Amino acid sequence: MTPRTRNDRGPRRPVGPRRPTATPQSKPREMKEDHVRLAALGGLEEIGRNMSFIEYKDEIVIMDAGFQFPDEATPGIDFIIPNVDYLAAKKEHIKALVLTHAHFDHIGAIPYIIERLGNPPIYTMNLTKALIERRQEEFPKAPKLNVVTVKYGDKHKVGENIELEFFGVDHTVPETSGVIVKTPIGNIVHFADFRLEYDEDGKVQDIKEFKRIGEMGVHTFMVDSTNALEEGRSQSEKVIEKNLEMLFKQAQGRIILSTFSSMITRLAEIIKIAERLGRKVAINGRSMKENIQTAQSLGYVKCKPDTLIPVEEIHKYKDDKVMILSTGAQGQENSGLMRIVTGEHRYIRIKPGDMVIFSSSVIPGNERSVQRLQDNMTRQGAIVHTSGLIDIHVSGHALQEDLELVIKTLKPKFVMPIHGYYYFRFANGRNAVRAGIPPANVRVLDNNGQVCVLTKSDFIVTEENLPTNYVMVDGLGVGDVGEVVLRDRLMLAQEGMFVVITTLDRKTGRIMKNPDIISRGFIYLKENHELLDEIRKRVRGIVSRIPHSQQVDADYVKTLIRDQIGQFLYNKTKRRPMVLPVIIEV
Amino acid sequence: MTPRTRNDRGPRRPVGPRRPTATPQSKPREMKEDHVRLAALGGLEEIGRNMSFIEYKDEIVIMDAGFQFPDEATPGIDFIIPNVDYLAAKKEHIKALVLTHAHFDHIGAIPYIIERLGNPPIYTMNLTKALIERRQEEFPKAPKLNVVTVKYGDKHKVGENIELEFFGVDHTVPETSGVIVKTPIGNIVHFADFRLEYDEDGKVQDIKEFKRIGEMGVHTFMVDSTNALEEGRSQSEKVIEKNLEMLFKQAQGRIILSTFSSMITRLAEIIKIAERLGRKVAINGRSMKENIQTAQSLGYVKCKPDTLIPVEEIHKYKDDKVMILSTGAQGQENSGLMRIVTGEHRYIRIKPGDMVIFSSSVIPGNERSVQRLQDNMTRQGAIVHTSGLIDIHVSGHALQEDLELVIKTLKPKFVMPIHGYYYFRFANGRNAVRAGIPPANVRVLDNNGQVCVLTKSDFIVTEENLPTNYVMVDGLGVGDVGEVVLRDRLMLAQEGMFVVITTLDRKTGRIMKNPDIISRGFIYLKENHELLDEIRKRVRGIVSRIPHSQQVDADYVKTLIRDQIGQFLYNKTKRRPMVLPVIIEV
Repeated sequence: MTPRTRNDRGPRRPVGPRRPTATPQSKPREMKEDHVRLAALGGLEEIGRNMSFIEYKDEIVIMDAGFQFPDEATPGIDFIIPNVDYLAAKKEHIKALVLTHAHFDHIGAIPYIIERLGNPPIYTMNLTKALIERRQEEFPKAPKLNVVTVKYGDKHKVGENIELEFFGVDHTVPETSGVIVKTPIGNIVHFADFRLEYDEDGKVQDIKEFKRIGEMGVHTFMVDSTNALEEGRSQSEKVIEKNLEMLFKQAQGRIILSTFSSMITRLAEIIKIAERLGRKVAINGRSMKENIQTAQSLGYVKCKPDTLIPVEEIHKYKDDKVMILSTGAQGQENSGLMRIVTGEHRYIRIKPGDMVIFSSSVIPGNERSVQRLQDNMTRQGAIVHTSGLIDIHVSGHALQEDLELVIKTLKPKFVMPIHGYYYFRFANGRNAVRAGIPPANVRVLDNNGQVCVLTKSDFIVTEENLPTNYVMVDGLGVGDVGEVVLRDRLMLAQEGMFVVITTLDRKTGRIMKNPDIISRGFIYLKENHELLDEIRKRVRGIVSRIPHSQQVDADYVKTLIRDQIGQFLYNKTKRRPMVLPVIIEV
Repeated sequence: MTPRTRNDRGPRRPVGPRRPTATPQSKPREMKEDHVRLAALGGLEEIGRNMSFIEYKDEIVIMDAGFQFPDEATPGIDFIIPNVDYLAAKKEHIKALVLTHAHFDHIGAIPYIIERLGNPPIYTMNLTKALIERRQEEFPKAPKLNVVTVKYGDKHKVGENIELEFFGVDHTVPETSGVIVKTPIGNIVHFADFRLEYDEDGKVQDIKEFKRIGEMGVHTFMVDSTNALEEGRSQSEKVIEKNLEMLFKQAQGRIILSTFSSMITRLAEIIKIAERLGRKVAINGRSMKENIQTAQSLGYVKCKPDTLIPVEEIHKYKDDKVMILSTGAQGQENSGLMRIVTGEHRYIRIKPGDMVIFSSSVIPGNERSVQRLQDNMTRQGAIVHTSGLIDIHVSGHALQEDLELVIKTLKPKFVMPIHGYYYFRFANGRNAVRAGIPPANVRVLDNNGQVCVLTKSDFIVTEENLPTNYVMVDGLGVGDVGEVVLRDRLMLAQEGMFVVITTLDRKTGRIMKNPDIISRGFIYLKENHELLDEIRKRVRGIVSRIPHSQQVDADYVKTLIRDQIGQFLYNKTKRRPMVLPVIIEV
């Protein structure tokens, strides 16, 4: 429950699969050979906050700018974005920011950092463009984005020395694209988030394209590690759709289905199935409504004009002709699903016979609220289905066999696992070795910010580290909640706080009134008068024992109170609230 | 993230599978027919805190007294125990407290409640006896326990009208026992936590015993629902052992295996396998050491005298002759495993080639610390295996097919699913229906504390509700952390707090000095002088606008400051710290 510190890691060193490759250490300044610098500012020690860049002389290309959701160590935070200090200082060098796809762990940081980066050209496809532009409007002070729309197969020369080539990969959102960054030292291939889609004969649909990329020669392959630990290979989204359709057919009343609003591919398919089964579809929840509208306008959601109906009109149709798609599968407060179950929704209540489907995995930390949601829906008469019960959620990330296959096909010189914790990336390093990459050519970086130097023949992990600390977004503040504030929040959450206010006569140093005490999150004061009286007595005692001949040293008195009252409270309760002494001198 | 309230549940009503059975409502006072009262004080809305009881006239038998681990809604709490007010008021009626097995979710509350219950006779088996007695010693003020040791097959008359009969069930700790509570209205069978162990022919080993119990006639079957949602049947512990042995054989260096110290059956088997493979076993972590000692003294761990070695002697053996069993699989601070990875352990460091095995599932809320532990072990050169990768953890709870089989064998009149959230218990109700129980005879209670009245022919859920709120243990305090304190902790964790101290002249009502401000967990004050100055100015403004002719109404000034400064902070930051105004009058 404490923020991560360096020293809980043990000795640091970069490790490659099995034993570390002898990574030559070199300072970049000494590097005379033609080289590219490469570093990840996020995504190597977490799931989320993906951002990396490539620098050749005075030209920089950035890949993605995502955020990460907070967890139990960052309470009260909205989200965590990468530290872009290094890039901001070189903003005039930035030739392109490539966005691989429209998920927040790849695009979420944009409104907070784009101005600091000098509002560089963003290379991305239509859907991502539409979604980031819409979001940007929610930030009135943020600049208008400067987007270059790309298509699969497009090549764009950015700067003097770098060319970008885009290609399609399969994921849970349409228009996910990988990118080949062609540099003077070779091609660096970034595969975005991806999974493989197999056709009925078990062949990978994009394999030809991957072969073509491999034939161009790949210096370094930056590859997604999210599912690197999972055995087997991607299950077809079609299997999931078949399962969902079978489930839908069993429903005798309404169907209420909840998933992430960013799963646009899934949502499009579900609408298609609903239409086939003669059900109208109502969308509940702003983000889902907006995403579906955008996807519809770009042709990714295709349905008859009367299939989508407003939520307020569901009562006009028979229960078995209605499907509600809703946000809130994580049990978030005030989300679409939660408002339904608490009875606060204007148009929808759970009724017996409703089939409720949770078609998404539970994000750690949300287990309890999701459980409560499911309990209450069941109490109210709904039949609840979750992805644990029937395979109605499939991951958007390649599994071991997929990863091996892609690595084998691309035949890169070096493999650099990205996206995931060290343990995940290490496992992906092993996948690379199984795919035939020599262990000495696998680069499992120790942490975010490590600068790598790539020459025509080598990939060197240097000693240089860029700043990559958490930058926290909390309300309007970006970066103003730091380690100290977080540590305080965690302490306050554990044991609460205890403010002791002592009013002293400035001249005599004598206590002027009974000390005031404010406490929250410790014990319920109204029920603990004796303890309070005892503490006041002790504070008076502390002050009275200070010789009155000398002037009051407020800091000294505070230290005495903090230590002695803290110890007293601990002895009495075995808890350590944050003791905050205040001296008022009048 | 807020403590549970009634109103997030929606309308309340008891629900049976598909549609609720018409549960007659009746006040127990009006009940003239011979009847038993039955209620659960915990375990119906959570995993943990299991405790239920049966009351016949002036005789009470309690089943289990467990605690529950805290979660994200109960920060800083050590654990949560059942509210025993109802039982404490009738303590002279308590004839027996039956403990089904030695897991904390069934025995953990004992030191905190046993005195309030009048220290009644505890009926349990040897191992549980040893463990609860040892734990009781850690509570110097708690009374010596009053244990009646039982064996499988034992019958004990407790009181005038109730007989207890014990029988064996399979679980992850030895000596787990179910109990038949024989009452004048019929037999109530409580099956503890259990799974089924199948022999090589796929036959359930205890099936004869279960048939015998069924043949005696079962009025109500109280049945574990922990895995009621899981399809299939229990996997044999032998499969897990085989998998573990295969894994152990791959290890070229030391093996470090971590699991719950309460998984005594598993630990005993692992020691056996280690011995077979010629490895010495060192135990790391106090609770595991104590549990293994106890199990050894009772004959549940059998090994040669020199197989178990002290941790400080592991260096005397070759790496491939050593196995370390360790606590800390949940990534807890200061646990055995954590100390190894941070370099703080006196005798053990991770070295390249170590095989580290996590043989337990991750408790929600611990994902991040477990992840960090696994990352750092991998960084330090260990090969890490988790239960996700190979099936090295098996649940101790019966799955759907097991549950159906047991219900079919026992042929109870009524089934009351216990142990688990509503959604789990509801699913278990469906298992009962599939096993042939009429839906009208399945009792899925809405919540803890509902009093049921059992007559010879019926099982009536009444309107009476016993108090079952969370009783929280925090340090030395039991029950002194309530909803208010918890709500404050959660608020403090989200946005921190902001204390504004205003010193007024009692006579004139004028402000005597610049207001003092203390804030923690909000923003870092040292970097926000301007904001502080602005707030001080506003506070002075608020006070100066109060007419000085009248006496100062401190509460009124406080309200003004709380509202106006709160709003100002929100406008500036979009955060709502807890604003705590203090008025010092001198």
